[in-house]
Amino acid sequence: MFAPVYFDHNATTPVDPAVVEAMLPYFSQQFGNASSRHEYGRAARRAIDEARAQVAAAVGAHASEVVFTSGGSEANNLLLKGAAACLRPGLLAVGAADHPCVLRPAEQLARRGWNLEKLPTDPAGRIDRERYAAVMARKPKIVSLLLANNETGVIEDVEPLAASARAAGAWFHSDAVQAFGKVPLDFRRLNGCGVHALTLSAHKMGGPKGAAALILDKRLELEPLIAGGGHERGLRSGTENVAAIVGFGVACQLAIERRAALASQLDRLRTQLEEGLVAFGGQIFGLAAKRLPNTVYFAFAGVDGETLVGHLDRAGYAVASGAACSSANPEPSHVLRAMGVADELARGAVRVSLGRGNTEEQVAGFLATLRSTVDRLQRLTAMAV
Amino acid sequence: MFAPVYFDHNATTPVDPAVVEAMLPYFSQQFGNASSRHEYGRAARRAIDEARAQVAAAVGAHASEVVFTSGGSEANNLLLKGAAACLRPGLLAVGAADHPCVLRPAEQLARRGWNLEKLPTDPAGRIDRERYAAVMARKPKIVSLLLANNETGVIEDVEPLAASARAAGAWFHSDAVQAFGKVPLDFRRLNGCGVHALTLSAHKMGGPKGAAALILDKRLELEPLIAGGGHERGLRSGTENVAAIVGFGVACQLAIERRAALASQLDRLRTQLEEGLVAFGGQIFGLAAKRLPNTVYFAFAGVDGETLVGHLDRAGYAVASGAACSSANPEPSHVLRAMGVADELARGAVRVSLGRGNTEEQVAGFLATLRSTVDRLQRLTAMAV
Ligand SMILES: Cc1ncc(COP(=O)(O)O)c(C=O)c1O
Ligand SMILES: Cc1ncc(COP(=O)(O)O)c(C=O)c1O
Repeated sequence: MFAPVYFDHNATTPVDPAVVEAMLPYFSQQFGNASSRHEYGRAARRAIDEARAQVAAAVGAHASEVVFTSGGSEANNLLLKGAAACLRPGLLAVGAADHPCVLRPAEQLARRGWNLEKLPTDPAGRIDRERYAAVMARKPKIVSLLLANNETGVIEDVEPLAASARAAGAWFHSDAVQAFGKVPLDFRRLNGCGVHALTLSAHKMGGPKGAAALILDKRLELEPLIAGGGHERGLRSGTENVAAIVGFGVACQLAIERRAALASQLDRLRTQLEEGLVAFGGQIFGLAAKRLPNTVYFAFAGVDGETLVGHLDRAGYAVASGAACSSANPEPSHVLRAMGVADELARGAVRVSLGRGNTEEQVAGFLATLRSTVDRLQRLTAMAV
Repeated sequence: MFAPVYFDHNATTPVDPAVVEAMLPYFSQQFGNASSRHEYGRAARRAIDEARAQVAAAVGAHASEVVFTSGGSEANNLLLKGAAACLRPGLLAVGAADHPCVLRPAEQLARRGWNLEKLPTDPAGRIDRERYAAVMARKPKIVSLLLANNETGVIEDVEPLAASARAAGAWFHSDAVQAFGKVPLDFRRLNGCGVHALTLSAHKMGGPKGAAALILDKRLELEPLIAGGGHERGLRSGTENVAAIVGFGVACQLAIERRAALASQLDRLRTQLEEGLVAFGGQIFGLAAKRLPNTVYFAFAGVDGETLVGHLDRAGYAVASGAACSSANPEPSHVLRAMGVADELARGAVRVSLGRGNTEEQVAGFLATLRSTVDRLQRLTAMAV
């Protein structure tokens, strides 16, 4: 089987074999609907309860604070539109470098009477503090900020931001989809600082596609996006995806068990990768900020990112030229724009996102291939000029 | 392993082993994000394309008319709220016996300025024709009617209803979650009669939980419920659940291959079951209407449905006392209320929904157990009176 080296873990991750193992019985044996009042239904309910406890434990939350959804996009839409539906329109602030599944629902709300403020980032990729303070002074009702950026890996220090949002009377949400499983998260502590909700997604951390969660402070009232049978405390109706939820729970448990080992593995690989990149002229975005241990977003002057990704793909390396979710879009990354990166350099952006299966040999091979590819492409560009 | 006889296929079905087999490679090998521009991503995209064609073929639609969602509840919410968001508030008509995932979003719209009409059914469980005509005369903008009822199995003849909705200028949607896989569906033909959208769900017909579809006439404009990266032609954002979508596609193909054999099997079993039930005093709901070949909804005078279901569960038979989705609700079924069934009899309602794995021996064993249980419970009731 053709198996290129996978360096795109921020797009999605392979499901851990132990996770698949745990999911398997829930397809054809314990296949019940968790709402059914018979043995098949009760077995499904018990499995969901256990997974809920596992997810909660992984982020320091109570099981009752976990609302399962089908994905991170759904969780972000639920939070934003659900909270807005329970409030009178007012000021809504989101990060300009946030994921499209925060930006687009925020824009939908703007069309329904909300005043939308997109918070700019500084050149390192963090929220601009001065501008943030100015927006807080205008008393937003909802603030949503990415905890770790999917493109740059830049980690936002949300605690002080949440604290000032709370002082301004706002509900504060953070999309932690990329942070989860890569850096420790403690909802109790974050909640104490004013974070009312966190979004998590299983398929970004070794779990299956189809399960995600909104970790939710119960004081934050939400109208359901998907209304119906009243599942998930009335916040998300629909027959629960038992197998995926079970897989999510097991992936959470594995993530905790492996956290320390994974962190040092990724740290080593990232250092190797970044040193190699810089050695032949790569520019790394967000270098000045604290970043995820697995993400390196870079560009080479005069080399188009899409073209580079295509060459690397053919050479057996799977990397991204921007957020997978918006890669149908030929515009330079909105994240780099928010950071003030010139469009010309931004068009060169390539993201490597490492994961548990990656090795030093893979990184070394990648650097060699990248170097010769970049050399070739730069020579072509020079000739064309 | 404890394996009670499963008679609750309208709640959910076991995933066919061939479907699980087809899904397996998409967890840990071909695990890519379908938006990624490398081999992993392209393999995922191809798999989704193939599944989309399989789902389309199963209902006589074009692949481009298939919008994948995470479940039937999401598809119904997307249709109702998504269409409403593109229109000025007006009259919305839904079936009073429809599923909660149509009724609840309709009620949400009613709180946002829509005028909601819940269409009553006749005693057989079909939409009351006179009342329907009167509502159409008031020019509804959206009409949504269940194609086959999840509790009674009653099949609605939606073609003439859609035709008069179209004449009134309405968009017409039908929830075909329970019909799909049990009776033939032809979207081209339905669309020709004025049906603009159909909801399907994989886990009700041998596919996995986590995949469903809205079959959508492209003239019907929808605002996405889940906005973000722009997946599914912008109608449903979020990383696609590739494995579940692949499973849905394969389940569709199996359903077509097996349709004739399954129909005659279910027909035989249902006749056996109904003759047995009637022989010792069971009253079957919706008997006067055309019904799904797998669904028998019945009651015995003086016997509480919940109690009966509990006894049957302990005796090794998994049946339902009402829609699984609303079984946290001790109220008599809203479906039976809409049909004018007295609350006392409605409280006795028990649903058997048959499936591919069921046999004549199972039905015979069930009838024997049911008879003795009903006898015992009726004697207890008689003593208590
Ligand atoms: C930061 C961030 N938030 C949300 C999402 C959306 O998650 P999903 O595609 O699983 O809905 C993603 C991934 O695409 C992401 O990177
Ligand atoms: C008629 C009908 N519509 C919609 C649904 C909702 O489907 P799901 O629970 O998969 O979201 C169901 C099942 O619960 C149903 O029976």
